Amino acid sequence: MTQTKEVSGARARKAQAYASAREVLLRCGMELLTEQGFSATGLEAVLKRATVPKGSFYYYFASKEAFGREVMDAYDAYFGKKLDRWLQDGSRAPLDRLMDFVADASAGMRKHEFRRGCLVGNLSQELGALPEAYRARLDAIFTGWQRKVAACLREAQLSGAVPAGLDCDQLAEFFWIAWEGAVLRARLLRNDQPLRNFIATFLVALGVRA
Amino acid sequence: MTQTKEVSGARARKAQAYASAREVLLRCGMELLTEQGFSATGLEAVLKRATVPKGSFYYYFASKEAFGREVMDAYDAYFGKKLDRWLQDGSRAPLDRLMDFVADASAGMRKHEFRRGCLVGNLSQELGALPEAYRARLDAIFTGWQRKVAACLREAQLSGAVPAGLDCDQLAEFFWIAWEGAVLRARLLRNDQPLRNFIATFLVALGVRA
Repeated sequence: MTQTKEVSGARARKAQAYASAREVLLRCGMELLTEQGFSATGLEAVLKRATVPKGSFYYYFASKEAFGREVMDAYDAYFGKKLDRWLQDGSRAPLDRLMDFVADASAGMRKHEFRRGCLVGNLSQELGALPEAYRARLDAIFTGWQRKVAACLREAQLSGAVPAGLDCDQLAEFFWIAWEGAVLRARLLRNDQPLRNFIATFLVALGVRA
Repeated sequence: MTQTKEVSGARARKAQAYASAREVLLRCGMELLTEQGFSATGLEAVLKRATVPKGSFYYYFASKEAFGREVMDAYDAYFGKKLDRWLQDGSRAPLDRLMDFVADASAGMRKHEFRRGCLVGNLSQELGALPEAYRARLDAIFTGWQRKVAACLREAQLSGAVPAGLDCDQLAEFFWIAWEGAVLRARLLRNDQPLRNFIATFLVALGVRA
């Protein structure tokens, strides 16, 4: 092996280790922020969970604020994919897809013993203590999720499953409004009954009885 | 004035000053916790807002945990009274009372430029970072509010304003589920549109079109 190859191999390994540690930090950030929000999460807790040496945080991120922004982006990417998987499942009727998503999210909450909520909901709730720039990002995430649910509701409308007169955008907004409240309540009660109440009542608002 | 009278007068003034400082601390705690939750609220910020000397907190409360419990109690008393005022207003039809409450709460949020949310919602959201004993208290507060809304819905049912077949307890639970999500979203957007969407869609779920 020539010296150049050795150097570039070492560089590649270093770059890979860097990228991998960054990824682990973001994943641990997502976990902690869905559990307890931004304010209550110290960088030490993130580093400890990620088993990345204390004091090396600023090697990976410019600040806690910058880290939070990247955690929000990573969560949006993760959750958006999950939503697409359920809401674009052509083998299921549009309203069944909505119910599938809720059932899957319920199972996910149960798996983590209802300790984890919604990262976007958590951060919205503690807005008063967050960097002002987070507000627009959180709003944009909700708007993106809303578009996905509105598209699903419009498919339901086209198929005749819900009345033609319904305002799908308003109902999609309502879906996420009530969803955040349902997740909050499910964590409090440590069971999925609020999520079941949520989807059943949402279907009633659509003019459908579950 | 005899010496005894002077002493007992001084004692009474001291007791009054103590009670009054405690009350101011609880009020400031309510304000801060509705703005930014428990974890982000340091005792120093509470003392500063209350203009009570730094370092004297433990003269009034045994711990931050004990303080938080009393703040929750004070908020529940305050909010319960507010709910009764609107939901037991016999001069208004039951569903109008619900809408009155939402309109009043919207005006309150606007007054504080949508910086304040719901204290119980905030604390529920950051549950992972709170003393375990808070959970039961928060749940009990929601249950109390639910009873008040369920009673109002039953009155609406008796008057024929909503269908006899509706499950008022389930809908009252849903009311607070969606309410918390609506307050969260109103803070994020800094406008009351989510609250208007919330009450309009809730009425649809009741089988009533606003």
